[in-house]
Amino acid sequence: MPTFVIKQISIRQARYPLKPGEGADAVHSIPEYAYAVTELHTGLPETGIGLAFTLGPGTDLVCSAVETLAGPLVGREIEELMADFGRVFRQIADHPQYRWLGPHKGVVHLALASITNACFDLWAKARQVPLWKLLFDLSPEQILSLLDLSYLEDALQPSDVISLLQANHAGRSQRSSILASGYPGYDTSVGWFQYSDEQVYTNTQRAVAAGFTAMKLKVGSKDSQRDIRRARLVRQAAGPQARIMFDANQQWTLPQAVRICLDLAEMDPFWIEEPTHPDDVLAHQALAHAIAPVRIAAGEHIPNRILFKNFIQARAAHFIQADAVRVGGISEFLTISLLARKYGLPVVPHVGDMGQIHQHLVLFNHIALGQEPVFLEYIPHLRDYFRLPAQVEGGVYRTPQEPGSSSDLL
Amino acid sequence: MPTFVIKQISIRQARYPLKPGEGADAVHSIPEYAYAVTELHTGLPETGIGLAFTLGPGTDLVCSAVETLAGPLVGREIEELMADFGRVFRQIADHPQYRWLGPHKGVVHLALASITNACFDLWAKARQVPLWKLLFDLSPEQILSLLDLSYLEDALQPSDVISLLQANHAGRSQRSSILASGYPGYDTSVGWFQYSDEQVYTNTQRAVAAGFTAMKLKVGSKDSQRDIRRARLVRQAAGPQARIMFDANQQWTLPQAVRICLDLAEMDPFWIEEPTHPDDVLAHQALAHAIAPVRIAAGEHIPNRILFKNFIQARAAHFIQADAVRVGGISEFLTISLLARKYGLPVVPHVGDMGQIHQHLVLFNHIALGQEPVFLEYIPHLRDYFRLPAQVEGGVYRTPQEPGSSSDLL
Repeated sequence: MPTFVIKQISIRQARYPLKPGEGADAVHSIPEYAYAVTELHTGLPETGIGLAFTLGPGTDLVCSAVETLAGPLVGREIEELMADFGRVFRQIADHPQYRWLGPHKGVVHLALASITNACFDLWAKARQVPLWKLLFDLSPEQILSLLDLSYLEDALQPSDVISLLQANHAGRSQRSSILASGYPGYDTSVGWFQYSDEQVYTNTQRAVAAGFTAMKLKVGSKDSQRDIRRARLVRQAAGPQARIMFDANQQWTLPQAVRICLDLAEMDPFWIEEPTHPDDVLAHQALAHAIAPVRIAAGEHIPNRILFKNFIQARAAHFIQADAVRVGGISEFLTISLLARKYGLPVVPHVGDMGQIHQHLVLFNHIALGQEPVFLEYIPHLRDYFRLPAQVEGGVYRTPQEPGSSSDLL
Repeated sequence: MPTFVIKQISIRQARYPLKPGEGADAVHSIPEYAYAVTELHTGLPETGIGLAFTLGPGTDLVCSAVETLAGPLVGREIEELMADFGRVFRQIADHPQYRWLGPHKGVVHLALASITNACFDLWAKARQVPLWKLLFDLSPEQILSLLDLSYLEDALQPSDVISLLQANHAGRSQRSSILASGYPGYDTSVGWFQYSDEQVYTNTQRAVAAGFTAMKLKVGSKDSQRDIRRARLVRQAAGPQARIMFDANQQWTLPQAVRICLDLAEMDPFWIEEPTHPDDVLAHQALAHAIAPVRIAAGEHIPNRILFKNFIQARAAHFIQADAVRVGGISEFLTISLLARKYGLPVVPHVGDMGQIHQHLVLFNHIALGQEPVFLEYIPHLRDYFRLPAQVEGGVYRTPQEPGSSSDLL
């Protein structure tokens, strides 16, 4: 087997226009989907590609941060690097001068995501396996060495990681049947914020016809009656069996959220997502009490394992929507998944990567960790730009078979 | 009175070398003090200078973000701008594409700090008064219009702002005596992390001789016995009456923090600062319970009013160390001060600005808000680089009299 030494690193912005209305929500009114892309060159055909997701301009800030932070990886061999990746992660995250700019959040942490994801991609390509298979074949000790568990000592010890993996080893082969049947998806694109009522209705019917059993509507209008009217439409078009979710993109104050969530309960939502500010652990906790049994999903703007720990400990969210292109990459995503597993909460990723990387990660979470396979968000808007776009057919993700993390862009 | 229109904006990095050991703590081992500086040019001698604090490289990222975010200020007249600054603040903070990079934290929020502070500086210079006097002369309604209270609806309403200011109006003239006597300072520079035991001892004696009644030691060593030994030295050198504080710069896990804080209690600390990760609201809450009556200070890495609200509501910190060059500038500092006042907690700023701006803000907090004048951190390392360095004599800050926020750099 050849050795894969990182000989050179290049960084670039990949920015993609969207069609009118696509991707728009109550706060991100004019999104442009974009990635800060880290490329690890080996002099061999295998190049490690790492993504961090942004919304257009500002991607250059993340790229600039990658430029400095990734420097120490040059000259490292990928197997040797990944044997101790938890320490590498922590060194980058705790850079004695850049750390001030976070810590562990914002531009510098997005940069770490891009770097981390490139390392995992190269590692899987070097071993010539898809990312899910790479992770699947690691020992509990090897998984542990990928993680930075600092500041989780009161919640997740190294011994917990080992025992969670060992305890879930038994059911693996049974749960592996999902590799053949496919991981269920849900359709986020039926109800972008600016779509007309008619579009939302038609899109929902089309999603059901395409095999989706779950779909999401953007809410958070200034006029809450609009939200409620559209939520009813989605329920009507989707039928009583479908799971429907409402996503407010942080547009509500706590008092508003309580009121509107209770109104939306009529439509039997599977969850209500990002009801208020993503830093507001206690507001989510209070809301969860006030609107039970309606459940809360949060995570696309939660930057790191420490804030996730707070949400989990406070029982402030019921669905953990960590995103490997928002937190410090695949490594921290795994840490958060283990934490959620220990506390009995499902991880249902937000997919800034359009599901490309997460289609691997949810297979690991289900098969190796015994997480419930709830479903995985599906957003098709960038599928023409990926070399190996996720294959979603009949409402399920087909298991990727090519080496790597499916992050290569055309 | 001439009108002050922002005709042009320039942005620059100001980076300053430190002498060996200065500024170093358990996590920031090789600091370089630096500012992302926003300059608002009016075509008149008055230029608005705004600072955001960083630790060296990475300042350029903040400057780049200022470049885009400050654009809409060009052509605005300063009185007209500040009449509605709360809305301006919110528009910049919620930029539909840059918001993703935070939200309200990290590089983009530091950029907002620099912009906000430049606006306040220009405003005070236009009115030819020091910042404290500018704030002092505003009506409660005018103060309110400077603030973005979004996501505080469950804790601080507009009516609370008005009534806090009105209720504290009566004692103003009595509390104004501090303008003549000076605001007490405390000395942070006696015990930087890498200073020898001998240096710490001598520095402490020198601080006491210079009139300081309070001083701080950096702790958070890998060897906790070193921390305890040095804490004893400071207590010995400072005498039993002095207030001494210990600053761990986030180096402890929660279980470690509990153990070491209980050991440090022997030295009767006035507070223990940044015991663990600044995002970990619940760990601070648990620690506060476990080590009572020892009190916790936190804030230099808490990025915004929403996380401060969580710390305050959770009773996870006893001293609120907001920093106007870390949160979104003077506007958000005032918001946090009002919030803390409502909940009965003192604001004792961290001074990334070396106290230049905060010497004004603590006067406002004491005189107009009725905050207890605990003391203000003093760090002398950059005094040669400011045009009007804070005058600290006999352990107290002399009230600045020149127009502006004392942010002009040489």
